[in-house]
Amino acid sequence: MHAYRTHDCGALRATEAGSVARLSGWVHSKRDHGGLLFIDLRDHFGITQIVFPPSLLPQVEHLRVESVITVTGEVVLREGATVNAKLPTGEIELRAKEVSVQSAADVLPLQVAGAENYPDELRLKYRYIDLRRDKVHRNMMLRAQVIASLRRRMIEQGFTEFQTPILTASSPEGARDFLVPSRIHAGRFYALPQAPQQFKQLAMVAGFDRYFQIAPCFRDEASRADRSPGEFYQLDFEMSFVTQEDVFATLEPVMAGVFSEFGGGRRVTEGAFPRIPYDEALRLYGSDKPDLRNPLKIVDVTEHFAGSGFGLFAKIAASGGIVRAIPAPGAADRPRGFFDKLNDWARGEGAGGLGYIQFAADGPKGPIAKNLEADRAERLRVACGLEPGDAVFFAAGKPDEAAKFAGAVRTRIGTELDLIEKDAFRFCWIVDFPMYELNEETGLIDFSHNPFSMPQGGLEALNSQDPLTIKAFQYDIVCNGIELSSGAIRNHRPDIMIRAFEIAGYPASEVEARFGGMLNAFRFGAPPHGGSAPGVDRMVMLLADEPNIREVILFPLNQQGEDLMMGAPAPVAPERLKELSLRVELPPKMVKG
Amino acid sequence: MHAYRTHDCGALRATEAGSVARLSGWVHSKRDHGGLLFIDLRDHFGITQIVFPPSLLPQVEHLRVESVITVTGEVVLREGATVNAKLPTGEIELRAKEVSVQSAADVLPLQVAGAENYPDELRLKYRYIDLRRDKVHRNMMLRAQVIASLRRRMIEQGFTEFQTPILTASSPEGARDFLVPSRIHAGRFYALPQAPQQFKQLAMVAGFDRYFQIAPCFRDEASRADRSPGEFYQLDFEMSFVTQEDVFATLEPVMAGVFSEFGGGRRVTEGAFPRIPYDEALRLYGSDKPDLRNPLKIVDVTEHFAGSGFGLFAKIAASGGIVRAIPAPGAADRPRGFFDKLNDWARGEGAGGLGYIQFAADGPKGPIAKNLEADRAERLRVACGLEPGDAVFFAAGKPDEAAKFAGAVRTRIGTELDLIEKDAFRFCWIVDFPMYELNEETGLIDFSHNPFSMPQGGLEALNSQDPLTIKAFQYDIVCNGIELSSGAIRNHRPDIMIRAFEIAGYPASEVEARFGGMLNAFRFGAPPHGGSAPGVDRMVMLLADEPNIREVILFPLNQQGEDLMMGAPAPVAPERLKELSLRVELPPKMVKG
Repeated sequence: MHAYRTHDCGALRATEAGSVARLSGWVHSKRDHGGLLFIDLRDHFGITQIVFPPSLLPQVEHLRVESVITVTGEVVLREGATVNAKLPTGEIELRAKEVSVQSAADVLPLQVAGAENYPDELRLKYRYIDLRRDKVHRNMMLRAQVIASLRRRMIEQGFTEFQTPILTASSPEGARDFLVPSRIHAGRFYALPQAPQQFKQLAMVAGFDRYFQIAPCFRDEASRADRSPGEFYQLDFEMSFVTQEDVFATLEPVMAGVFSEFGGGRRVTEGAFPRIPYDEALRLYGSDKPDLRNPLKIVDVTEHFAGSGFGLFAKIAASGGIVRAIPAPGAADRPRGFFDKLNDWARGEGAGGLGYIQFAADGPKGPIAKNLEADRAERLRVACGLEPGDAVFFAAGKPDEAAKFAGAVRTRIGTELDLIEKDAFRFCWIVDFPMYELNEETGLIDFSHNPFSMPQGGLEALNSQDPLTIKAFQYDIVCNGIELSSGAIRNHRPDIMIRAFEIAGYPASEVEARFGGMLNAFRFGAPPHGGSAPGVDRMVMLLADEPNIREVILFPLNQQGEDLMMGAPAPVAPERLKELSLRVELPPKMVKG
Repeated sequence: MHAYRTHDCGALRATEAGSVARLSGWVHSKRDHGGLLFIDLRDHFGITQIVFPPSLLPQVEHLRVESVITVTGEVVLREGATVNAKLPTGEIELRAKEVSVQSAADVLPLQVAGAENYPDELRLKYRYIDLRRDKVHRNMMLRAQVIASLRRRMIEQGFTEFQTPILTASSPEGARDFLVPSRIHAGRFYALPQAPQQFKQLAMVAGFDRYFQIAPCFRDEASRADRSPGEFYQLDFEMSFVTQEDVFATLEPVMAGVFSEFGGGRRVTEGAFPRIPYDEALRLYGSDKPDLRNPLKIVDVTEHFAGSGFGLFAKIAASGGIVRAIPAPGAADRPRGFFDKLNDWARGEGAGGLGYIQFAADGPKGPIAKNLEADRAERLRVACGLEPGDAVFFAAGKPDEAAKFAGAVRTRIGTELDLIEKDAFRFCWIVDFPMYELNEETGLIDFSHNPFSMPQGGLEALNSQDPLTIKAFQYDIVCNGIELSSGAIRNHRPDIMIRAFEIAGYPASEVEARFGGMLNAFRFGAPPHGGSAPGVDRMVMLLADEPNIREVILFPLNQQGEDLMMGAPAPVAPERLKELSLRVELPPKMVKG
């Protein structure tokens, strides 16, 4: 018989009754019943009930929960009411004949059984206990399975996984790198990659055609609920000889497949994901990360207020502002308090208030309707596709601000009216991002997103079009209002890149100095290529329905970037620093005010 | 028609003759033939011959090799002698009708076609060109496939892949860590993991049962041919509730499977790998990394020389030294020069020389045989299993030195006599490593290998046995004389660990102070567990038959730990250092002598 187990703790069934089995696991719970001791023994696979006769009590009765034991005994059918239908092993119990203690547990800082909440810091310090708890344990297994599935699906799509360097050079742009001092090269530093962006493009230049990697990425940035401090993982991929549509067609089945496989029955966008131009996303959803579970679409109604009797909006329209309408189906009969509450919310968001019209059975109602001409109100109703019984809210002001606020109103109204589709993952691509934007402070033209994306129309567009009208082959993938990734067809042509930077005010000499590495690589034969890099942690958060990214990471840093379990970061011995030719110079302490 | 390709460059066959196809790829080579231009167009998948008519020459004749083009044309059967049987696409060619240049190549620093050798530094600086070369490209694909296969096989064995932290705390022991300064926590540092050793053990404490990871590991150590500077990958795994034999039975099919799958017909150890106790490995093979392709076994012949007429060895035997015999089958008739050459080699290795006996048909011959009594020579011959016509060499001296030198002689003789098995991967486990050794300088007892392995016999052995006789549940896996990994059943019992350290001279207080993190984790219920971590890069080196590890890494650092392509490590701006509360203090320059 095996030293530790013949079965795992989730394996025994009625068919094994009468046989001898050996199990090992953690003491999940203990109950005393008239001289018999019942222990639920737990391992990764499940829980089995063990019954200890009085003769074995001296060996086990003093054990605390979470001690690890090995038990040998007879598998016995449970009778009648003692069968536990909730447990896969609930038809049987193990009558212990022998027991040995592998590890006696001390008093625990947090309990594994039960659903008590503990402070984050305690959970992270004792993460190895926290991870035994059912929900946390399941989240980690979900993460592992999602990643294994992503890998399988990418390989099926013809991708090959490569490991790119983790000790590398500082990125030319983007967020803050973590630096790693070199011992051999005194005074010089490696950087940890913010993403393998340059390496994956170089892999394309090297001719590997389809690269992917479940890639560790590093940013020395403040943490957020959806971004772990320090390190995070992305499904990094890149493809050669592809158009934007090829990238979409490749990623869609991977994403839809994984979300269907692990979505627990939640609906997933079928077929091609909607492609929504950036401008349209801002207009219809007030956001470039629209949550398509929300059926509401924003309507521009500026023309209906221009020159109207409702002076406030007329004035806004006259001064170049916009008025956006957010439909609220069936809300016309809501009590006054409903509208007041939303008005208060809007003020809390920094808006002047939240105007509305109620289209009652006998005509438009409310403060705005009082001042708006009846024919204008009617045209507005038709434009918004509203029926009697519906209401509409308005966001008005400067174009960018009003468009964005309309998005917030859309989300709020959708939630208030309980219109958000339940149990669904709704994907879309946001496409046609502008290549350039006007810097309002300087009046000059800046890159609006990624300077390394291919401009639509190529060199000819750069040479002939108003830069502010040029779009880029750049795209985001969004699920339920969460941006999973940016991506692009890359600019692989040095001539187009130098011209693109020239328009943004960078002379060729500066482009060569800063990005010479990539430019040179593109001068020895580069294929057209593009890709994206959906965030793995965010995907798992969505699937696990966890709002905090730490719930889907095995050993996360806390919000302050500390590993409370291992004690990192930590001071290091002066000899080590001397080896690295470094000295710590702490900033002077703040003087207390 | 797709913008870039209807087929890849390895796809077209005779069956497609007559159809129109579009291909994209790199200009691998160009040949002019009476007004027609032939281009071999290459991509990741293969090579296709393109024929350009005179009308298209203006667009392509000026192009340098490695330019990237897209060609549309008719697939045409090649005729008779022009069929290229070596090329999968060799039955056809593409008659170009349209061509567009995606990327015009500059003059190349190194050629892709052909097999010219280039200096490492040039290859690494232009790695994205070097990687297009056939052998290098294939090595990278082999690596990727090996890793994908390892993953698949581990998952089939019930393992789950988890990502452990890369920004973590300094290891309590082992090689030098890379440090990462924290910006938020001034004066404190993260470290990059030398291996996820503690995390994988904590994953076992957390109850995950079977963990694995293709894990990036980091050591700030000098590079060697078989160790990349900076980072390397291992197949890190750990299992709960297992004995040493369980670990072996789990890993063997994974290793044998991968080596069979990618070995290109080379033979692989079948069934269970030989288990060779450490002491026996030193005795029989003169090494704890024996190359079992070499059939020679070393024999201890000290007794045959003790008190014999061959004074040198008799004296060595009398003073506690040993004499080891290395058989040389069939070597009795070799000319004098053979033995002289080996003698010279031995002196070059720092030995006094290399004694030998030739067992000729008419009796033992050579300088040693002259002085050794005939009956002793005969007993020695029998002990070594030798026949007339064989020879034997001797390594004599202090036990450790002579045993080790005997191993070098075994390798040398095996090679000289061409006895090493060809085209085979021969695996073994080295087991029963000693837990402790005597420090010859201090006369005190030290740990001999890993202090965290479980001593065989547990607490009782520690309390009752001579420490120098205690073995550990520790093991190495060796293939063809190359150590792929150490592993162990871990010591999961705080009481046993504290006693084990006490024997090596560490008081409990120091153990608690240095390794308190792990000890505490083991106090809240820890399963018996063990694992190993075979080196992925080394596996691929063996499979690719490459002696240099850089040949199996996509973007390796050079021997000085520099990334010549991206320019790392590099100086950083003083502001960045200030943010990190650091100052560089370069060591004073060496005064020229």
